[in-house]
Amino acid sequence: MRKVKVRFLPEEKEVWVYPGETLQDAFLRAGYWLETPCAGRGICGKCKVRVLEAKREQEKGNLELTSEEMKHLSPEEIQQGFRLACQAEVTGEMQVIVPPAVGEILRPAVKLQGVAADSVYPLSPAVRKVYLELPAPSRQDRLADWERLERGLREANYLPQGETGGRGWKLDSALLCYLPEVLRKSRYKVTAVFYEEKLIAVESGNTSEQVYGLALDLGTTTMVGFLLDLKSGRQLAAAGCGNPQAAFGADIISRISYVSGGRSNLRELQRRLVEAVNSIIAELAEQSGIKREHIYEAAAVGNTVIHHLFLGLDPTYLGQGPYVPVITRPLRVRAQRLGIQICEGGYLYLLPNIAGFVGGDAVGVILATGLYQKNGVCLAVDIGTNGEIILGWGQEILACSTAAGPAFEGARIKKGMRAAAGAIEKAAIYEDVEIGVIGGGPPRGISGSGLIDAVAEMLRVGVVDYTGRLLGRDEVSGRVPPAVRNRIIESGSHREFVLAFGEESADGEKISITQEDIRELQLAKGAIAAGIKILQRELGVETEQIEEVFLAGAFGSSINPLSARRLGLIPPVPLERVKAVGNAAGEGAKLALLSRLARRQAEEIAARVRYVELSGRADFQEAFLSAMYFPRE
Amino acid sequence: MRKVKVRFLPEEKEVWVYPGETLQDAFLRAGYWLETPCAGRGICGKCKVRVLEAKREQEKGNLELTSEEMKHLSPEEIQQGFRLACQAEVTGEMQVIVPPAVGEILRPAVKLQGVAADSVYPLSPAVRKVYLELPAPSRQDRLADWERLERGLREANYLPQGETGGRGWKLDSALLCYLPEVLRKSRYKVTAVFYEEKLIAVESGNTSEQVYGLALDLGTTTMVGFLLDLKSGRQLAAAGCGNPQAAFGADIISRISYVSGGRSNLRELQRRLVEAVNSIIAELAEQSGIKREHIYEAAAVGNTVIHHLFLGLDPTYLGQGPYVPVITRPLRVRAQRLGIQICEGGYLYLLPNIAGFVGGDAVGVILATGLYQKNGVCLAVDIGTNGEIILGWGQEILACSTAAGPAFEGARIKKGMRAAAGAIEKAAIYEDVEIGVIGGGPPRGISGSGLIDAVAEMLRVGVVDYTGRLLGRDEVSGRVPPAVRNRIIESGSHREFVLAFGEESADGEKISITQEDIRELQLAKGAIAAGIKILQRELGVETEQIEEVFLAGAFGSSINPLSARRLGLIPPVPLERVKAVGNAAGEGAKLALLSRLARRQAEEIAARVRYVELSGRADFQEAFLSAMYFPRE
Repeated sequence: MRKVKVRFLPEEKEVWVYPGETLQDAFLRAGYWLETPCAGRGICGKCKVRVLEAKREQEKGNLELTSEEMKHLSPEEIQQGFRLACQAEVTGEMQVIVPPAVGEILRPAVKLQGVAADSVYPLSPAVRKVYLELPAPSRQDRLADWERLERGLREANYLPQGETGGRGWKLDSALLCYLPEVLRKSRYKVTAVFYEEKLIAVESGNTSEQVYGLALDLGTTTMVGFLLDLKSGRQLAAAGCGNPQAAFGADIISRISYVSGGRSNLRELQRRLVEAVNSIIAELAEQSGIKREHIYEAAAVGNTVIHHLFLGLDPTYLGQGPYVPVITRPLRVRAQRLGIQICEGGYLYLLPNIAGFVGGDAVGVILATGLYQKNGVCLAVDIGTNGEIILGWGQEILACSTAAGPAFEGARIKKGMRAAAGAIEKAAIYEDVEIGVIGGGPPRGISGSGLIDAVAEMLRVGVVDYTGRLLGRDEVSGRVPPAVRNRIIESGSHREFVLAFGEESADGEKISITQEDIRELQLAKGAIAAGIKILQRELGVETEQIEEVFLAGAFGSSINPLSARRLGLIPPVPLERVKAVGNAAGEGAKLALLSRLARRQAEEIAARVRYVELSGRADFQEAFLSAMYFPRE
Repeated sequence: MRKVKVRFLPEEKEVWVYPGETLQDAFLRAGYWLETPCAGRGICGKCKVRVLEAKREQEKGNLELTSEEMKHLSPEEIQQGFRLACQAEVTGEMQVIVPPAVGEILRPAVKLQGVAADSVYPLSPAVRKVYLELPAPSRQDRLADWERLERGLREANYLPQGETGGRGWKLDSALLCYLPEVLRKSRYKVTAVFYEEKLIAVESGNTSEQVYGLALDLGTTTMVGFLLDLKSGRQLAAAGCGNPQAAFGADIISRISYVSGGRSNLRELQRRLVEAVNSIIAELAEQSGIKREHIYEAAAVGNTVIHHLFLGLDPTYLGQGPYVPVITRPLRVRAQRLGIQICEGGYLYLLPNIAGFVGGDAVGVILATGLYQKNGVCLAVDIGTNGEIILGWGQEILACSTAAGPAFEGARIKKGMRAAAGAIEKAAIYEDVEIGVIGGGPPRGISGSGLIDAVAEMLRVGVVDYTGRLLGRDEVSGRVPPAVRNRIIESGSHREFVLAFGEESADGEKISITQEDIRELQLAKGAIAAGIKILQRELGVETEQIEEVFLAGAFGSSINPLSARRLGLIPPVPLERVKAVGNAAGEGAKLALLSRLARRQAEEIAARVRYVELSGRADFQEAFLSAMYFPRE
């Protein structure tokens, strides 16, 4: 189904919506908050909006008013193109006038730091609280505890919404075990906590201001948690740690192998991850001074294997062709079932997966970058231990995955190390080599971005040729400054290029880039560049058509775009089109936590992104081989 | 809201429905199964039915066609009164013609043995199974396991219904843990098990014929379980046992006291009940040779206190004014949460409660007797350890509860015993006393019904007067046969009437009814008779207006109606109006298990029955005192 554009006047804001969605959906998507007291049932008639050229469409038979609209709209209004936003389906491109009052009451909107200027979502978390003062039971009023609470909710005009279709609220039956006590101890002054349409907790007194949520980015190597205030959308704290599963395999393939050793291995990997999440929660609670029981939801992103391991699902078939996950659609699971220590009735929401190796983290990147709303083609590259590549725009998005990681994370690089204190993260070559070290001080090794920077410079000055060969001192003689030439060390067939001599380094050993290191880098960048090439080919997009390139992930964001382009890691686009977007996957998790509309969008993204499997494709092998070379300027 | 009648022609069958319900609801209620491939959305137009006098109503403006009906009905059809049953709301009394095809395809209906000839429900359990043969994944078909299953369901035209509104099925996420293995081991031939719209299990191979459910009657003193085949509605086995909670208190009040000793006492009572249920399940499975994992739901009835104890809810406030339950509405709880050993993903459905002392058991009685559908006033008396009284008809139903039990269950009666082998259960007095003993053989004691029979006969022949006084030998001299007179034994102020002398009894001790026994009986029957009187007064119904009297419960059903009437336990109605209906509460649980329509009905019953609290009412005290006397013929 092709999406269509809805344009909002007078601001000329545009959003993409699917045909069949209502104008109300389109307003929400554009960040406007239409008041709909009747919850979109066409009863209150408050969401009147004017559609331009509606009249003409009507005459063509494309625009059919519902019986609810007939009731609420006068003939003049119909003539002028007024519709009820909650009733009117978007049938084609439309222009809509935003009622002045709506423009003003724009809800507190969720906006991330510079990631996606045009993906603004209304703050509408799945968790809501209502404070109630109930009458105590009496001989004249013998209503049961639960029904008393329910009546209070109704009297507070807190109407059941969603799936129950107005027949009442769902409730977590476990809370009935403490309900009588809470009601009586609080003298019937309680706060009801809803997760969607389900009552998940009843708290003593008025706690309606304490509503917190957790966004989790579960990476293969590192994990980060963000504590958010669901009333304001503000981030209160952030904390991270290594993924303890790394002890059972550095990459996802080795963790799948570990699971093949038996059910108890799967349980162990799950337990480790849950423990680490709980330690993050404890740290966040301490940092911010809030109670864990006031965290009601955790929204998590991770690649498909981590997603499976977190839920205790067998990842075996992700490790063998045709690489089938257990499930891709989004899941809501009781946090308690996994042992996640938040509110007893709280939930864990897992963003949907796209395919075997492209998970909720990629969905998060697409969501946070607003790529699915773009008019021009965008490329997003999230390089972690696993690398995801996404290419597309508002109408079509492709994604693939490549095992890019190890070289960039420091593995298999002689002096490679994580991006931590002492790592060379920048390098430039003029009269001599100049390096930037994380934390200052003498260097201990080279980080992934340092490697890219250094090799890009070596390529630029001609110490390395386009095939990746490190030239000998004789070969560069006269073409590079002597100090640079002196950094080339040859012994037999072995060659290396010194970034820091022994006397400059932290441990007295020289830090250099070997010919083998360059080959590893070529493999890694070749895989990514080939992935990009295949996606471009599948989408039929030339490099000049790529309007934006997003570098995502802690590592991806730290790369010098110029160096990345020089090495051919990213296509040769003008540099101003390249943007480092930080932990976009984590930002996507935050959006999903804060806005149910963003969540719905994530679900649509996952369902519509087309996954391209690279393994076994002859054209990928070919692209890979040629992408290993560096570009000739 | 007053219910209205819908009459089905040509059979002239009548049912009560609430205004606002659809004609489709009315058809279901009448036991007709209308095919509605579009699940009642007004899309397929297959449920056309003709309403008589619809035209006239339409002209009066009472009958408004929906836009869906306008699409599917021709002007001629509208003229003739045709409607779409799924769309047309019942607005007042209606006569509907049953389409001949519908009359023929009457679904296998659930009908109980003689209890309620007119409450026939379509067999429509909450559990359904679908057998699927899925394609294995391949390079061309990389769908995830769950999505593969979902596609298979869609291709089998098994459309999601109910709460999810067509957006997909809900699933028990726990089943994802074994889904990959089941799919591959079965070579993608599996049976999906649904509970309502939620997938709760996936089984290897074709198990679609094995669909079983459990109906549970959880009494204060005894509990019974029935195993039913949900494909045919047939009962496969029945098993019972004592309620092990009895060790912690014979009646519900003493169990509430026990719970006041602390949370662990509540947990203990719950655990005992769950263990007993599990032993019943084990016995049913053995008797019938089925697997416990093929039982997917248990529908349970019990009084409100037992309901709370079963779920682990604090019954404290049921024991003190104003006698407030924790919850009255029906509950679905995962069986696993309580430790009930049926299918891992299976559910427990608890019928709704009415009030503090009138629980799902009373709802079950109303459901099974069809009392809520009657044109004339009916009385139902369910006498167990707790006694429930229900009075009403199609438009209005009242209920109350009295602590009648102990005397009828053998407690506080000198020679009282349960209705077991050796109990005198019948007595008649002609030239001498004639007794009927359960199991034949010499008697060991007197059961409740034996006590009622004997005292009724003693009253008839004049050994007992209407005040309940046992006359002396002198007083009856010449008025009763000598053999009967000789059974009166006097020693000082103590008097007793011998039913079996020492030489006739099992243990050589005489079995007699003492003056004190008669007083106990008067207290018990007085409480019930007074409860009936109060309900009659509240409803404004004279005795002659009572068209049917249902005696329910194992004990209630064993009473001789003539004796009960003679003692004034039930009002003086013609005997042919009195019906023993057996374990009607248990039958109600069966109906709720077998038919979702019956379940919905149970929910409506619970919401609409008016509970009358007897304690603290002056008029009840007064009625109680006068009801202790026996009627003067």
